[in-house]
Amino acid sequence: MEETPEVAVLRLGHRPGRDERTTTHVGLTARALGADRVILAGSGAGRGETIEDITDRFGGPFSVESTDEPIATVENWEGPVVHLTMYGLPIQEVEGEIRDVAGIGSDDTEDLLVVVGAEKVPFDVYEAAAFNVAVTNQPHSEIASLAVFLDRLFEGRELDREWTNAQQVVVPKAEGKQVTEPE
Amino acid sequence: MEETPEVAVLRLGHRPGRDERTTTHVGLTARALGADRVILAGSGAGRGETIEDITDRFGGPFSVESTDEPIATVENWEGPVVHLTMYGLPIQEVEGEIRDVAGIGSDDTEDLLVVVGAEKVPFDVYEAAAFNVAVTNQPHSEIASLAVFLDRLFEGRELDREWTNAQQVVVPKAEGKQVTEPE
Repeated sequence: MEETPEVAVLRLGHRPGRDERTTTHVGLTARALGADRVILAGSGAGRGETIEDITDRFGGPFSVESTDEPIATVENWEGPVVHLTMYGLPIQEVEGEIRDVAGIGSDDTEDLLVVVGAEKVPFDVYEAAAFNVAVTNQPHSEIASLAVFLDRLFEGRELDREWTNAQQVVVPKAEGKQVTEPE
Repeated sequence: MEETPEVAVLRLGHRPGRDERTTTHVGLTARALGADRVILAGSGAGRGETIEDITDRFGGPFSVESTDEPIATVENWEGPVVHLTMYGLPIQEVEGEIRDVAGIGSDDTEDLLVVVGAEKVPFDVYEAAAFNVAVTNQPHSEIASLAVFLDRLFEGRELDREWTNAQQVVVPKAEGKQVTEPE
């Protein structure tokens, strides 16, 4: 993951009770697939501990933040903002431009904010985003959209990321489970 | 999506209360990203109606089934079985072989079963799967893993899928929301 901009994921609209698992999945997907940090809005902050626990065990760097003013986070972001929404432009048509704007693989990078909602996203976010991006124009899952977006943004390089300060490491196996402590 | 094998997604281990949203997301992700059907095991069947409602509104074909004997579904499957697990082999190392075995893009296809769990998956599934596949060896989300797997399996062609019998169609937009009725 050399020469990549910082990528932050902002999780909006967490509904207590209903979105506990999905907000956790957003955070863990952000971590696993190459983002540098997740920002949990409002009551979504309650899921931060679970995500930090995974980072403590399986390594980092990855940070978890929270905000009570997510719209300000979007509007004040210095670099490009990508909002993942089923109403946006097809990812396959805009991913190249987003890589260019963020400077992926160049020496001149811009930090990227990726916004994913749970419930209905305020129109302010559509307006503030440089890119409203659809991973299909079908209703499915903000977790799935985030995963496909990150895998395409980094063109698969995120899969080879190395982790530091892990207490345990999974050893890939054709069958069964193997977990070791790092050397 | 010409000349592709049938792809079914089996959702295992649904926990009532805890997994309502995630099982729905698995089913909707399967539909949106090119699978032909989802099979919901045990109490996960309760999420079928929500998934079918989306198919009624946004089009198909896509079918929802349920089973109380998911291990038999895995063991009796005629074609190759892929189990998505953080303990498996890296997707970037095995995706080509899976495409070959399933006959993606050839005239000689084999139906593929993709298994995703919620809670701990029985060891029988690891044994019965032709491929235990990891979308990173990190803990994150079966929804994210399914999304990346399908996008790579179909090499992005699933994003251009057309839908039949839709009551409503989202028109991609750079900003805002536009929904129409199909012609």
